[in-house]
Amino acid sequence: MKVNKAVITAAGRAQRSLPLHRFVDRDGQEKTALQIIIEEVLAAGVQEIAVVICPGDEAAYREAAGSLAGRLCFMEQDHPRGYGDALLRTRSFVGNEAFVHLVSDHLYISRGTDGGGIARRCAQELVEVARTQGCTVSAVQATRETMLPYYGTIGGEREPQQQKLYAVREVIEKPTPTQAEQRLLIPGLRAGYYLCLFGMHVLTPVVLEILAQLQAAQPRATVQLSPALSELARRERYLALEIHGARYNIGVKYGLLTAQLALAMSGSDRQEVLEQLVELLAANQAVA
Amino acid sequence: MKVNKAVITAAGRAQRSLPLHRFVDRDGQEKTALQIIIEEVLAAGVQEIAVVICPGDEAAYREAAGSLAGRLCFMEQDHPRGYGDALLRTRSFVGNEAFVHLVSDHLYISRGTDGGGIARRCAQELVEVARTQGCTVSAVQATRETMLPYYGTIGGEREPQQQKLYAVREVIEKPTPTQAEQRLLIPGLRAGYYLCLFGMHVLTPVVLEILAQLQAAQPRATVQLSPALSELARRERYLALEIHGARYNIGVKYGLLTAQLALAMSGSDRQEVLEQLVELLAANQAVA
Repeated sequence: MKVNKAVITAAGRAQRSLPLHRFVDRDGQEKTALQIIIEEVLAAGVQEIAVVICPGDEAAYREAAGSLAGRLCFMEQDHPRGYGDALLRTRSFVGNEAFVHLVSDHLYISRGTDGGGIARRCAQELVEVARTQGCTVSAVQATRETMLPYYGTIGGEREPQQQKLYAVREVIEKPTPTQAEQRLLIPGLRAGYYLCLFGMHVLTPVVLEILAQLQAAQPRATVQLSPALSELARRERYLALEIHGARYNIGVKYGLLTAQLALAMSGSDRQEVLEQLVELLAANQAVA
Repeated sequence: MKVNKAVITAAGRAQRSLPLHRFVDRDGQEKTALQIIIEEVLAAGVQEIAVVICPGDEAAYREAAGSLAGRLCFMEQDHPRGYGDALLRTRSFVGNEAFVHLVSDHLYISRGTDGGGIARRCAQELVEVARTQGCTVSAVQATRETMLPYYGTIGGEREPQQQKLYAVREVIEKPTPTQAEQRLLIPGLRAGYYLCLFGMHVLTPVVLEILAQLQAAQPRATVQLSPALSELARRERYLALEIHGARYNIGVKYGLLTAQLALAMSGSDRQEVLEQLVELLAANQAVA
C-alpha cells in the first residue's frame, strides 16, 4: 500500500496556537511545534501534507513552518464540528489514497531504532507497518486505567506471531472503567493497562466515507473519529501498532514544559539542560 | 513624581512571537507572556499601557492579551531601527509624563516583599522608588563579568545611606572587559560583578528628547537606548535600583523552558512540577 500523503488537524479552537510554539528539538535546533510535526511526517517518506486550520490562521502557520511551508497545503474548517469533520475537509486532497493522520497538539519522542541501531521516528515506524500490512493502522500505547478519561481506547487481540501488532475489534472514545473492563481488555497486556490511541494513524479513504455517512445521518452533530474507527473495524482489516515511544500533549497544563524537557532529556543537549536544571533548583531552594 | 503610563516594546523582528507564548504563571494560571508582563505593569499601579509592535501584529497581540486587551493601545514601528526608535514611536502617548518601560522578551520573578511580608513585583518596587525619588530609575542586577557581552551596564556609585540605590554616571551597551574595568566598576560590589540593566526602567520624557536628538543627528542609523541613558546621566539625576528578583530572557535557546521552570519553582505548583520532573528524569534515565 502506498502512503504518500499526510493530514495534520489543527483547527481545534483551544489548540490552534499550540503548533506555533517554539521548542528546542532533540537535535538542539530551535523549531516550532509545527516544524517538528512536519519533520516527523517527512521522515516517514510522505510527500504531500495538508493542514486543517481555523479560517484566518494560514499566514501564522506558514510563518511557523518556516522553510517547510512550501510542503504544505491548507484546508479551513469553518465551524468547530469535531475532529471527524476536520478530516472530512481533506477529502479532495486525500482522494483514493491512504494517508497518515497526526494531531497538532502532541509531540512524539521515539525510543525505537531500526535493525542497525539508527533512531526511527514514531510516524516512520507506523507508516512502514501500514505499507507492509496494506490496511489502516493506528498507533497505540499501553496506558494506565486511570488515564482512560483522556483517550480513545481499542479492544482487540494480539496478531499471531507479532509482538506489537493487534487486530482492532472496536474503538471507544474515553471509555468508562466498566466499558473498558467489559469490552477493551487485551489478552496478554499487563494488568490494569489498556491500549489507548497515540494520536497517529495511517487511514484508508474508507474512514472518510464512514465519517461522511455519520455526518449525513446527523448533520448538526459534531463528528468524532473514534466511532468511525469502530465502524471501520467491522468493515475491513484494521490493526493497532504498539509504538516504542512517548507522546506529549502540549495542550494540557505544563504540557509545553514537559514536552520541552522530554525533548531535551532525550536529545543532544541533555547534559547542558540537566546542569541548568540543577542550577535553577539550587537557586530557588536557597530562597524558598 | 506621577508614573501612570507604561511602554512595552515588542517590535524586534526576532522577538515578536515571544509575547504570544503560553506559560503557567506562579499562581498556577495559564497565561501568555504578554499577559504576565501586563500584570507586572498593572501591579505597579500603572493605568495606560502602550505596546510597540511590528505592523500587522495587533490582532495576535490583542488575542494574546485576552481580557486585558482593553487596557492596551498599539503603536507600530515600520522599520527595524532599534530599541530607541521603538520608544520614539510612543512620544504622543507619553507626552510630558514619566513612564515605565519594559521589554517583551523577559519575564521577571520577584523575590522581594513589602514590610508585611507580602510579595511585591519587580515593576512595583521600581515604580515606588521612582515616585519617591522623582527621577529616572533603571532596574539593575549584579551580574558576573562573563555576562557583560549580553547587557547594557552602568557605572556610578552607591547613594549615601541607601542599600540598593546607585547614582548612575554612565551606561555602556555590551561593554568589553577593559571598558568595564576602567569605567564601570562599582565601589562596594562583589569582585567580578557589575550592575547590568534588568530590562525595566522608569524614564522621564527627557529620554525621548535625547533619543530624538540622536536620531536627528544620524537619521539612517539604528537608535539604541543605552547611549541616550548615558547622555541622560550627564543632564539630570538618574538612579539605578538593584532589584531583588531575577529576569529570564525567553528569547535565548531554552529561554522558554528556563522561565517556565523558574515560574513553577517559585509558585504554587512547585511540589507538583518537581514530582513531574523527577518522574520524567527517571523515565529518560531508564532508556538512556
